Amino acid sequence: MTATHHVDRTRAGLAPCHSMEVSDEFGELRQVQVAGERPLTLYLNKREIVTLMTLGGHPELLALGYLRNQRLIPDLADVKAVQADWETESVVVTTRNQVRSLEEKLGRRTITTGCGQGTVFGDLMEDLERIRLPEVNVRQSTLYALLKNLAARNEVYRSAGAVHGCALCLDTKVEFFVEDVGRHNAVDAIAGHMWLEDMQGGDRIFYTTGRLTSEMVIKVAQIGVPTLVSRSGVTHMGFDLARRLGVTMIARAKGRHFLVFNGRERVILDAPAALTT
Amino acid sequence: MTATHHVDRTRAGLAPCHSMEVSDEFGELRQVQVAGERPLTLYLNKREIVTLMTLGGHPELLALGYLRNQRLIPDLADVKAVQADWETESVVVTTRNQVRSLEEKLGRRTITTGCGQGTVFGDLMEDLERIRLPEVNVRQSTLYALLKNLAARNEVYRSAGAVHGCALCLDTKVEFFVEDVGRHNAVDAIAGHMWLEDMQGGDRIFYTTGRLTSEMVIKVAQIGVPTLVSRSGVTHMGFDLARRLGVTMIARAKGRHFLVFNGRERVILDAPAALTT
Repeated sequence: MTATHHVDRTRAGLAPCHSMEVSDEFGELRQVQVAGERPLTLYLNKREIVTLMTLGGHPELLALGYLRNQRLIPDLADVKAVQADWETESVVVTTRNQVRSLEEKLGRRTITTGCGQGTVFGDLMEDLERIRLPEVNVRQSTLYALLKNLAARNEVYRSAGAVHGCALCLDTKVEFFVEDVGRHNAVDAIAGHMWLEDMQGGDRIFYTTGRLTSEMVIKVAQIGVPTLVSRSGVTHMGFDLARRLGVTMIARAKGRHFLVFNGRERVILDAPAALTT
Repeated sequence: MTATHHVDRTRAGLAPCHSMEVSDEFGELRQVQVAGERPLTLYLNKREIVTLMTLGGHPELLALGYLRNQRLIPDLADVKAVQADWETESVVVTTRNQVRSLEEKLGRRTITTGCGQGTVFGDLMEDLERIRLPEVNVRQSTLYALLKNLAARNEVYRSAGAVHGCALCLDTKVEFFVEDVGRHNAVDAIAGHMWLEDMQGGDRIFYTTGRLTSEMVIKVAQIGVPTLVSRSGVTHMGFDLARRLGVTMIARAKGRHFLVFNGRERVILDAPAALTT
């Protein structure tokens, strides 16, 4: 984060979980943890853009990453201030100049996926043609060490479930881990973090607990990360986009198991594989 | 389906899965099944509304249910025709009369959740106050028998993963089961089915493999179903809405286990519970 942006993160921290009483199949009462979910309305220069339902951990990063990934703000230098306020359940982003053709971009509610009904504004598919990702190898040994490091990080998921986790990783290190009720929010928050910290994606690995649908592949390609690892499966369109964009796509990655859906020539098998199923 | 609507379902059947070759952690090639994902652009009287990413099994029901759940069409009697065409990846809904205040409704991209970034138009939360659900008991023995019947139905999930299933159930019978890449699409398709078949929700159970976020609870309440069962967890806002709407909310339902999050007074424990964990 540079001094040119005023990003107020003092009120960022919502408690992610709520403790509540439920009844089990024996009729016995139990205390369980439940993931929070809060509406957060995003305003861009006083224009209401969207209401996101979020776990609430990183409202400012979510707002920035959303605007970046929807290509509503092309350059972080345009951002003057970001301020989240849970009392009004809003996050306000102000830019130095007017956002160009904002109404036109908001008018098209096209390509959408993931949950099946996300919202990506404008002519995103056409912009994809311009993405160039570096060809990067990934070692099996790195992947195994990384999966081990990631296993310790799903905090909300382990206590409350109902969330997805996404992580930005460098080699075997988990640099930034975000859980949210929607995996699209988690990847957007990571995009916001990378923007603020001026991080490039080329040498990084993106991990998610969620499925690799078309929208996930698009979002990860937009932040320039060439290697995508998921604990879950893929859709055919997710695979097709990974192939066209040159993304190395590894799914069903858990413990010492994984399946390479795209880019197997870039996966170096240098470690003992799974011995048990 | 009554004779007054022309719903062309001749081209409805997209193959749900694709067979493809992947490489495993030993570097060995394997054939796996991958769930399809196709864009489907919904037009309402020539106005482009949204593009949904879908498995493609029920494009007409998805379109109708989407328009119903977004409250863009208040009454099925307004619908003149529904026609899906995979060549143009579109589904066209025409109504007998102009849709009232359509532009106004489309202008607000508010409350959204689930994947965290869905799209629900207009002042949905205000309309919720008008929903009245019947108070219906559910028997543990019914639930167990239903879960057993449901276990056989996750066809795409079992072969390809990356999809969610939703089912409309009457007692222990699965009346209609839909899988889709997004659980919001699956619930919308069920809403479309109920509309066309003129089915009421009051005596039914809604089951989903997905999480019970705010948007899922809202959608199920909108179709009038008072009992909601999920294999997954809940969010706190999902629970809060279930409580306000009087929805019986049962989650973590698998085999002989379940947790009652709301409405435990309506769950009749009449069967031997789980003996093992």
